[in-house]
Amino acid sequence: MKQFTYYAPTEIIFGWGRLAEIGTLAARYGTRALVVTGHSSPAGAALYARVVDYLAKAGVEAARFDGVIPNPTTDVVSAGARAAKDFGADLVIGLGGGSSMDTAKAIAVEASHPGTAWDYLHYTAGPTAKTLPIIAVGTTAGTGSQTTPCAVITNPATKDKSAIWHPNIFPKIALVDPELTLSMPKNVSAQTGFDAFCHNFEAYISVNSNRLTDTLALGALRHIARALPEVLADGGNLEARSRMAWADTVGGMVIASAGVTLPHGLGMQIGGHCPQVSHGQSLAVFYPEFTRYTWRYAPEKFAALGRILNPALKTADDQEAALGSCEALDGFLKAIGLWIDFKSLGVSKEDIRAIADCGQVLGDYKNNPRIAGIPEMYEMLMRCYKR
Amino acid sequence: MKQFTYYAPTEIIFGWGRLAEIGTLAARYGTRALVVTGHSSPAGAALYARVVDYLAKAGVEAARFDGVIPNPTTDVVSAGARAAKDFGADLVIGLGGGSSMDTAKAIAVEASHPGTAWDYLHYTAGPTAKTLPIIAVGTTAGTGSQTTPCAVITNPATKDKSAIWHPNIFPKIALVDPELTLSMPKNVSAQTGFDAFCHNFEAYISVNSNRLTDTLALGALRHIARALPEVLADGGNLEARSRMAWADTVGGMVIASAGVTLPHGLGMQIGGHCPQVSHGQSLAVFYPEFTRYTWRYAPEKFAALGRILNPALKTADDQEAALGSCEALDGFLKAIGLWIDFKSLGVSKEDIRAIADCGQVLGDYKNNPRIAGIPEMYEMLMRCYKR
Repeated sequence: MKQFTYYAPTEIIFGWGRLAEIGTLAARYGTRALVVTGHSSPAGAALYARVVDYLAKAGVEAARFDGVIPNPTTDVVSAGARAAKDFGADLVIGLGGGSSMDTAKAIAVEASHPGTAWDYLHYTAGPTAKTLPIIAVGTTAGTGSQTTPCAVITNPATKDKSAIWHPNIFPKIALVDPELTLSMPKNVSAQTGFDAFCHNFEAYISVNSNRLTDTLALGALRHIARALPEVLADGGNLEARSRMAWADTVGGMVIASAGVTLPHGLGMQIGGHCPQVSHGQSLAVFYPEFTRYTWRYAPEKFAALGRILNPALKTADDQEAALGSCEALDGFLKAIGLWIDFKSLGVSKEDIRAIADCGQVLGDYKNNPRIAGIPEMYEMLMRCYKR
Repeated sequence: MKQFTYYAPTEIIFGWGRLAEIGTLAARYGTRALVVTGHSSPAGAALYARVVDYLAKAGVEAARFDGVIPNPTTDVVSAGARAAKDFGADLVIGLGGGSSMDTAKAIAVEASHPGTAWDYLHYTAGPTAKTLPIIAVGTTAGTGSQTTPCAVITNPATKDKSAIWHPNIFPKIALVDPELTLSMPKNVSAQTGFDAFCHNFEAYISVNSNRLTDTLALGALRHIARALPEVLADGGNLEARSRMAWADTVGGMVIASAGVTLPHGLGMQIGGHCPQVSHGQSLAVFYPEFTRYTWRYAPEKFAALGRILNPALKTADDQEAALGSCEALDGFLKAIGLWIDFKSLGVSKEDIRAIADCGQVLGDYKNNPRIAGIPEMYEMLMRCYKR
């Protein structure tokens, strides 16, 4: 057995209707909670009102910061950190999708440290244990942020997209209530669901994977292969929503230890250069090239993927099943409505050049079983221009 | 999916030779470490010397408390806590089997709180976050203590065996170096290995099990079914030793969330009344009755056990495989040299009466899929008198 380190300290509170426990959970950490959300929609306002009510019943006073935007910026984080300090927040609750949870994490850092959150990025010493306690409450099922030590933020001054990655920003608690995902529109369900798929698969094939993350990730992939199409066919399928919420949570746990690989590294650049492309779309557009580029370098693992997505491959040997995983993955993308190309997403060939040139800015590509140079990245990305 | 709570915050440092990292790991928590061990044997002395050396290289000064005994008592804990306070320990390192790790946890509580460790048992409010940080370094592969929030201690004044069970005594770090288990004698390997088997199986069938603990426990049971006989055939089988160390670690993680059931509840009483019986022996003697008593109440789960222990059951339906698990488990006990009875262990019929009468003192029996009353416990235990 190879050596590994595994650390997943977030307490997971999983189950239908468990949002009702947020008051008593928050009260462990103090009496004043900053709740971090996106701009108010009617559904968001109703959810926030429920949360405030549960908090009040446990003696926790709430203030709302509703400035979260997709691809959260340093400005947004600083505004939220000021709100936290003005309110005297004891803890920060991220309520929403990955952007809300990531913003909550960055606010928890900036509100408790000198300078700004940007001063504590992954290549620095990182935030200290003074970071305000974070409770993550997801309303999508895909980003895994509720169980990761990662907060992705963008610096608009330098057009830089980067991340804090440090054990001190693991949420203390991930409150995973699948009921909150029922209101997700179909396209968001598909895109975030595929993100969860990618977290689990990339952690599984990562050179830093281990026996534990392998077991967890494979289990989650089996759930997603079945539950994501079920959710898209019927958004009210409670059992399928539960399985997606769980697979998403596992996705966070496994990338926390094993990391992500080539697609996520390039996906960050795609999103940084072309903000109109969602994170899930950026992964979907690139995956068919990634599988064909990589399968020969981890045939047993791609074979496992092939057998999960296409039961006909169960009796095939590893080479055949691994090769078959490429077509099986194409079929899965088609089934979930994410068989897309750059052209239709408004990504130009010039954009692709710029994306490829930044392809090694983040280290994720090094976790891939086959390591790509910039020219290879460019070729692969160009093949995604038109399908 | 049913609701559940999962919390396994211990950082796991797994791998051959990783003991060498203990200095830098300990240095995260301070500069003075109390190392808690059993009485010195030549092998123990050599191991301690290595640890002191690694600690010194990282600027951490060590003091040794070597008063650990099997079934650690409150006296021992108090002596260790005095040593910790006299030394001004910043952290406590448990180095040895489950008794050393449990004693280290209790010392970490008593050295940082008013009163004694006994004042913080599972039914109290428990120890606070002031508990000294704990690093667990196991030299057996069975107790799982490195990843649990549990410290079993005995009060000799009242002859009471009980436990602290609280999140604040989860070790900060479990350093799992399979090399340290190479020196375990064959009988200790078998008894502690079967304990690891029971942790995983009881968490799997517990009424508090969940999807995550199920996945982890099943994986660990598959390892043990193969690796434990391999270890007993050749104590120097490095891969098998690694798998046992890993399955043991998983056993701690799953009981932390799902708990143990009837056999562990009674096993504690057997050990309390008859200290000559090791914990692993107390489980082995009772398991054949437990499987026959319980299998009909969780047929799918016992079927999974049957198929793991006896490949011939792979094609059987659940009822047949579940029934078959009872004989398969008997065969496994025979294969690992633990087909034993109370008579040969020196447990009298009067002892059995007293053990049964205490059978509901701990709540573990309530986690069993079938709940036994005292008369049923007595009947089952009596059938273990002579095989």
